[in-house]
Amino acid sequence: MTTASLRTLEQALRDKRLPEAAALLSSLAPQEVAALLEQMPPQLRTIGFRLLPKDQAVEIFDDFDAEVQVELIGELGSAHVAEAFDNLDPEDRAELLDELPASVAKELVRTLSPQERELTAVVLGFPRSSVGRRMSPEFIHAFADDTADEVLDRVRARGHQVSSIYIVPVVDRSRRLLGVVSLRDLLLAEPEEAVGPIAKTPIFAHALDDAETTADRCVDRGISAMPVVDAEDRLVGVLTLDDAIEIVDAARDEDEARAGAREPLRESYLLASVFAITRSRVVWLFVLAVSAILTVNVLEFFEGTLEQRVALALFIPLLTGIGGNTGSQAATTVTRALATGEVAPRDVGRVAGKEIRVGFTMGAALGLAGFGVAAAVYGLDIGTVIGLTILSVCTMAATVGGLMPLLAKTVRVDPAVFSTPFISTFCDATGLIIYFMIAKTVLGI
Amino acid sequence: MTTASLRTLEQALRDKRLPEAAALLSSLAPQEVAALLEQMPPQLRTIGFRLLPKDQAVEIFDDFDAEVQVELIGELGSAHVAEAFDNLDPEDRAELLDELPASVAKELVRTLSPQERELTAVVLGFPRSSVGRRMSPEFIHAFADDTADEVLDRVRARGHQVSSIYIVPVVDRSRRLLGVVSLRDLLLAEPEEAVGPIAKTPIFAHALDDAETTADRCVDRGISAMPVVDAEDRLVGVLTLDDAIEIVDAARDEDEARAGAREPLRESYLLASVFAITRSRVVWLFVLAVSAILTVNVLEFFEGTLEQRVALALFIPLLTGIGGNTGSQAATTVTRALATGEVAPRDVGRVAGKEIRVGFTMGAALGLAGFGVAAAVYGLDIGTVIGLTILSVCTMAATVGGLMPLLAKTVRVDPAVFSTPFISTFCDATGLIIYFMIAKTVLGI
Repeated sequence: MTTASLRTLEQALRDKRLPEAAALLSSLAPQEVAALLEQMPPQLRTIGFRLLPKDQAVEIFDDFDAEVQVELIGELGSAHVAEAFDNLDPEDRAELLDELPASVAKELVRTLSPQERELTAVVLGFPRSSVGRRMSPEFIHAFADDTADEVLDRVRARGHQVSSIYIVPVVDRSRRLLGVVSLRDLLLAEPEEAVGPIAKTPIFAHALDDAETTADRCVDRGISAMPVVDAEDRLVGVLTLDDAIEIVDAARDEDEARAGAREPLRESYLLASVFAITRSRVVWLFVLAVSAILTVNVLEFFEGTLEQRVALALFIPLLTGIGGNTGSQAATTVTRALATGEVAPRDVGRVAGKEIRVGFTMGAALGLAGFGVAAAVYGLDIGTVIGLTILSVCTMAATVGGLMPLLAKTVRVDPAVFSTPFISTFCDATGLIIYFMIAKTVLGI
Repeated sequence: MTTASLRTLEQALRDKRLPEAAALLSSLAPQEVAALLEQMPPQLRTIGFRLLPKDQAVEIFDDFDAEVQVELIGELGSAHVAEAFDNLDPEDRAELLDELPASVAKELVRTLSPQERELTAVVLGFPRSSVGRRMSPEFIHAFADDTADEVLDRVRARGHQVSSIYIVPVVDRSRRLLGVVSLRDLLLAEPEEAVGPIAKTPIFAHALDDAETTADRCVDRGISAMPVVDAEDRLVGVLTLDDAIEIVDAARDEDEARAGAREPLRESYLLASVFAITRSRVVWLFVLAVSAILTVNVLEFFEGTLEQRVALALFIPLLTGIGGNTGSQAATTVTRALATGEVAPRDVGRVAGKEIRVGFTMGAALGLAGFGVAAAVYGLDIGTVIGLTILSVCTMAATVGGLMPLLAKTVRVDPAVFSTPFISTFCDATGLIIYFMIAKTVLGI
């Protein structure tokens, strides 16, 4: 699928050339259709969705993000909705219920079969940020003394109901997890071989574990399905790679948005209204502007110095820029290292030691260059001030930038929130203080 | 695996308590062992690797990043290396060969069996950034008139040699791709059923397609293996979800690094030397500092105005900060929309229209607040200057920030390189010009 097919489909729907649109949709794989429809304005999306054959529509509804599902539910007739809802995986249904108004959610749950209602209840029983809420409670499991052929028969019989058949958890009689056996191993095993001995050490999670961390681990290790156990180590579900990728992507989106000082947009950029985009940014911009008033106060304090040497004002944006960039370089490096588990808050000493040395080295190189240029143009005294300030600001900014994410993690704030924009503002104010202290000393004012 | 097991293992290896370390390693799944060893200092990693049983060592070697593989090759004996090398998947082998010194690479290729050498040559025949270079040339395929049982037998017979068995491409007699059939569908089908009718529309890629874009599509749609075809639409390989995740992760790392104005680190943060970290940052910092000299020039031009009203200098960091933040908010939003395909360079008009209005709305809100505060403290004239400047700077910065990534994409530069740091610097300089023009007009100097 390319942007080209998006434009073609949009145009066909807009011009009400429906047979043409239907033909285009039926030539694509369901996942591609879902991706295509998600990027279209809601009215066109509903028309497109109605063109799909019924069984395909149900499958594609499942592929949509919860927000798109909510919009479609508002547009479609209730019979159509009830069927799509019954066909959702329990964990996707739980996510959708979280997004719907309570009255609609209640109405929809009433349409479910008792068995589906029970499965949904299992997932809804876990806290929102836990992996229990995102796991699939429908899975195939095996006992250690089952033969490979018996398990394969079970896969054949129930394969169409469950999200994952490529990894089968092996449990004991009290449902405690013993290991996992892959469908590949089942196929390659002798039909009469017991699965216990061919099962492998499982990579698993506890239902109350954080969904994001668990999903990261699942994606990082490329595991197609991760067993999830309860407090008594009993198997309660599996997290599929599909769902894990979705969780990781959503979390990355949020981190990126925070690092860019905004809230994530909940809809496609071109479809979002000016109001929605403004709302996603204005709060952060306001917070940052208010904290930047600090720099006005600092400069006010040194107004006397500035009046004596107006030339000092020329370097303010250059120096705050160097500080902000150095700080955000360090912050993004350490935030990343925290996310991948290379660094933990207890490594504060090692991080500080490293960043002080890195900042000093960069400051020395850049400061020397700054001294040379400034001394040549504005004289030796200004050159000295600029060189020394760059050295100090780089060392300070790298250290602060490196430690800030660790601090955020320690007080349980998302490191991405804290990092870049706040560090820039903080380094701006601190850098100005350093600058004028050095200037006063060197210039003797 | 937690950071706790990392510390325990490191300590055991450092203290030469090898049986204890071996026991810990054997209690973990291979992917966990690989993740654990990757985070350790190279000397300890080699010791740990030597403790692994031979067959496990070969599997774990395959899980390592190419850089770690290169290091290990330097440390291990050549017989050990040759075996691990022969057992790599051809696409991983191609990646490793790219990283090795030519002499070592040549030596290693010589140790391969003729068949493995040929498979490696297929992959190496495609350009480095293409998906052909990252696909697996070993796969199981089916013809449309094969029965489900025949294909399953083939999976059983060859399943241990290929990377992906969960999606089987269906081809015609000239190997042209017709569709795909999942292992799930094969198991659920009647044994004597032909696979042609149950095959689905494939989501596939061309071998010369960009690896990153293709991998994104594969991960986004959650496809466990994507067929890859050549210019004549003949099947030449499959891209597995594992490999796609690896490509996407590496690309995201690079984008994040660029957005933070640094080069990605090739090793774990705590293991990297001060020199390596400095090198990854100093070039960018230098480039940014040099472009920030622009702000010095701008201020120099307005030095006369500044001398008359030194109070104007107090607001410089506040105003450049607002501009920089607004610009990077817009830039990260549009960069993200470009990456997900929501926006293309041809949407330049729609993006500009949106960002002008968003910038103006935010500028009006923030400018009004700025006017109020500044007028109360510094008088009505300064208040007017600050309010109008904030309004103009926000509108300008949002527009420039939104368009810059589109420009980067048009001239085929990675939008992440261009975005945040350069936009800040550019907005700093432009914002200062706006500021002093408004000040001169309003204050009549």
